[in-house]
Amino acid sequence: MKNLILAADVGGTTCKLGIFDNHLDRLAKWSIQTDVSDPTGVVLLKTIYSAFVQKLNELNLKMEDVIGLGVGVPGPVDFETGIVHGAVNLNWPGDVNIREILSQFVNFPIYVDNDANAAALGEKHKGAGHNADDVVAITLGTGVGGGIISNGKLVHGHNGSGAEIGHFRVDFDQRFACNCGKYGCLETVASATGVVNLVKFYHPKLTIKSSILELIKEDRVTAKDVFDASKKGDLFCLFITERVANYIAYACSIISVMSNPKYIILGGGMSEAGDILIENIKTEYRNLTFTPAQNGTEIVKAQLGNDAGIAGAAGLIKTYVIDEERVE
Amino acid sequence: MKNLILAADVGGTTCKLGIFDNHLDRLAKWSIQTDVSDPTGVVLLKTIYSAFVQKLNELNLKMEDVIGLGVGVPGPVDFETGIVHGAVNLNWPGDVNIREILSQFVNFPIYVDNDANAAALGEKHKGAGHNADDVVAITLGTGVGGGIISNGKLVHGHNGSGAEIGHFRVDFDQRFACNCGKYGCLETVASATGVVNLVKFYHPKLTIKSSILELIKEDRVTAKDVFDASKKGDLFCLFITERVANYIAYACSIISVMSNPKYIILGGGMSEAGDILIENIKTEYRNLTFTPAQNGTEIVKAQLGNDAGIAGAAGLIKTYVIDEERVE
Repeated sequence: MKNLILAADVGGTTCKLGIFDNHLDRLAKWSIQTDVSDPTGVVLLKTIYSAFVQKLNELNLKMEDVIGLGVGVPGPVDFETGIVHGAVNLNWPGDVNIREILSQFVNFPIYVDNDANAAALGEKHKGAGHNADDVVAITLGTGVGGGIISNGKLVHGHNGSGAEIGHFRVDFDQRFACNCGKYGCLETVASATGVVNLVKFYHPKLTIKSSILELIKEDRVTAKDVFDASKKGDLFCLFITERVANYIAYACSIISVMSNPKYIILGGGMSEAGDILIENIKTEYRNLTFTPAQNGTEIVKAQLGNDAGIAGAAGLIKTYVIDEERVE
Repeated sequence: MKNLILAADVGGTTCKLGIFDNHLDRLAKWSIQTDVSDPTGVVLLKTIYSAFVQKLNELNLKMEDVIGLGVGVPGPVDFETGIVHGAVNLNWPGDVNIREILSQFVNFPIYVDNDANAAALGEKHKGAGHNADDVVAITLGTGVGGGIISNGKLVHGHNGSGAEIGHFRVDFDQRFACNCGKYGCLETVASATGVVNLVKFYHPKLTIKSSILELIKEDRVTAKDVFDASKKGDLFCLFITERVANYIAYACSIISVMSNPKYIILGGGMSEAGDILIENIKTEYRNLTFTPAQNGTEIVKAQLGNDAGIAGAAGLIKTYVIDEERVE
């Protein structure tokens, strides 16, 4: 009986690989270096395939017991076809048809999604989402990304731009330019970059003393500095932390009246700031959000960290092959 | 072979009833008066059943050819169970288990949803949604409601508060109280009531002459008056129309980065305002929205009007019984 899932979380430096059983329990996890020498992607994908062959052999597992292979990649993916429309970090300037390339080596189903969606699916299945049918994950890192799961399925939308949570306007003063070409996106005020944007904007205006003044002057302040100083009671940093929390809470309040998830999962580097950020988010969320929509919804920290990606890559096969009863 | 769908759109004054074939082509449509005398709902639901029996007889159709019955109601519905948690307009103060009550009379599947979700599903299947898998409908009436369809399925969320599009804060000055108990909700500035709110707020502040001044003074101005005067070039009304359009465009821009629908369908009384409103919405939407998420998305007017409700009630059976291959 087929009972294995292969999973690859492809990153710019390393590829995390995993072998899971059909209940998404992990049997093996390891990493290989990402080969970015080939802009067509063929070399890297063949290397990944070879790594799976070798590991299955080592573990006395058989390729014919594999149900499917899930792949997460750092770029915009057409979920229907498995084509990634370029991936800067992988040195893939153009389209790479991951499903087609990998299908030359194997004959089981291959599902491909972007890394943010994969991480959200991982947290749903094996992390803070407790396998609820309606879960939203927000990644607060250098940028702001996310994944929305409704009725147990990822929301890709008609052209794959679903769950681009970092890119709607929340700063109507449009103070900061976003990488996307617009101004005032959530990402410009609620990411690690956004924290620094707010620090630079407010510190000349406020007369509050701050322990991070030297860092600001030397232009080397980070989001972590701000949250660490907040925890020690630095008033300027608390002010910034509250601003950031309010923006994130606003996004959560909108998510609640749109998707009404059971869990809103906050992940990414910034979620490591701990209670100082998350408790401020919860307070403003309760204040802002339509009462029926916030009932029973929990804002929680991500649990899987860097393992969310492979758990979610495996989750693609669980969700779209096993649960759909498409196992051959 | 079973090939019929029964559909009921239950309203406070009349119930619209319909018989459809399994492709959602309508075979019959009629109305009965809504009997609001019984707070348990049994009398009304039995009357609806009897009306279907009579109409099927008239048309020489057989109850045993019915695949299922879809019902839309004006109240919060638990989609899993078919229970409506009260419906003010029907004089139902408490829970009414519509599925259980109707199952006493028939033995085919019964699906129940709130009227906004039903209308959205109707527009998806037979109206402006062209049967796309990702469609969002916004109803701009006395309030603002909506329905979100992702991956072909309605987004109910974990407690049925999905697609409560009227209830997130967009007016950060929180000038107007919302029926929901919060301030500044989209509904307070982008519904027919919201138009009047904005008129009353701005007219003492602006020195622009307006043709609707008498109506404002006599406190009987309506949203229609504002849009009609806008079309004739009234500058004050154009100013209000632009404000309203900008709020709706903002909602559309968020919807695009969350659900990324192919069609955003604007319905309800206010959508009758025509180009003066919708063209302003489109302009601001293009300005606001994350470029990849707006590509290929169309903002369109609803096509079915008052018939969206029964089309969508029938659509529940198409979506959740026929397309899921659950026809017995």
